[in-house]
Amino acid sequence: MKALRAFVAERDWGQFHSPENLAKSVAIEAGELLECFQWSPDTDVSRARDELADVLTYCLLLADRLGVDPNALVLEKLEQTRAKYPVERAYGRSTKYDQF
Amino acid sequence: MKALRAFVAERDWGQFHSPENLAKSVAIEAGELLECFQWSPDTDVSRARDELADVLTYCLLLADRLGVDPNALVLEKLEQTRAKYPVERAYGRSTKYDQF
Amino acid sequence: MKALRAFVAERDWGQFHSPENLAKSVAIEAGELLECFQWSPDTDVSRARDELADVLTYCLLLADRLGVDPNALVLEKLEQTRAKYPVERAYGRSTKYDQF
Amino acid sequence: MKALRAFVAERDWGQFHSPENLAKSVAIEAGELLECFQWSPDTDVSRARDELADVLTYCLLLADRLGVDPNALVLEKLEQTRAKYPVERAYGRSTKYDQF
Repeated sequence: MKALRAFVAERDWGQFHSPENLAKSVAIEAGELLECFQWSPDTDVSRARDELADVLTYCLLLADRLGVDPNALVLEKLEQTRAKYPVERAYGRSTKYDQF
Repeated sequence: MKALRAFVAERDWGQFHSPENLAKSVAIEAGELLECFQWSPDTDVSRARDELADVLTYCLLLADRLGVDPNALVLEKLEQTRAKYPVERAYGRSTKYDQF
Repeated sequence: MKALRAFVAERDWGQFHSPENLAKSVAIEAGELLECFQWSPDTDVSRARDELADVLTYCLLLADRLGVDPNALVLEKLEQTRAKYPVERAYGRSTKYDQF
Repeated sequence: MKALRAFVAERDWGQFHSPENLAKSVAIEAGELLECFQWSPDTDVSRARDELADVLTYCLLLADRLGVDPNALVLEKLEQTRAKYPVERAYGRSTKYDQF
């Protein structure tokens, strides 16, 4: 987070990093990540890692902009998901919670 | 990462988490995050945080599946981006590096 | 539709065009279209048209694969949307129907 | 196109339909279409058609906003793709043209 903030500050890029622009950027990079799997479930792992790095970077910048710690955010959401998907119902099934 | 892995293992969900399925999931959740900004640059911050949590969670699961540490991945990519966007060229500009 | 089908058949590309792969392709191209607006609401119109062409092409191929006429599909959905968004409620508002 | 325009005009929704907002909407709906295939290549066809209708609708609205006929746009792009993917090179292969 500290390294990302310094990188952005050095280039005066904070002006472009509105939450909306960062959300668009996450979606754009998610499309590039998906492109690694466009015609086949297999992919070049190093290319997929590279695209994942871009999605993650914009996610972290957005978390910072929204004033939230990314680790805390994931853990907090995990607690909610745990309640929606109790083990006895969700075990071995990919069904969405509202279709149990 | 440890908490996510335990959550997935308890539900035997690893079978659904192929890299391709996780990449699709990242893109799906990125669309939901973007929906917070569909008609306006302003949004409800708590809703945006909630959607960002989902994108981040799938990114972390994919990183794990691709055998890479998410923090190292972001920092490594930052070094490459630093080389593509030297401060003297990139300062205050959102131009893509191949259009400098 | 006829021109698209001939183009695909000549290259024996039908084998890659499963509904899933076409849905991924729509999302990938939608990301490229969005990239035209990544840092600003303004864009180069000819570039946006070009990316829109790709999204549309994959949508048409998917419609064909799902056995549905794209014009009929849009008109049918329009009738449903009309019911969800009656003029007297929806006039001049971007609110989602479930939040009226 | 005529039906879509009337639907939008009746609700005074043109004010929300900037090219940027429509591009975001295409990406959001593309994510919902992809969700039909999140955990499996198989899907409920009627659900996929329904989501495809939404992507197509926003594509048509954006084409209109960009002042281009959607059919002409697709056919024009097809000619460019034809040049990039000559039959003798592209036959039976999903390789991208810049990797031939």
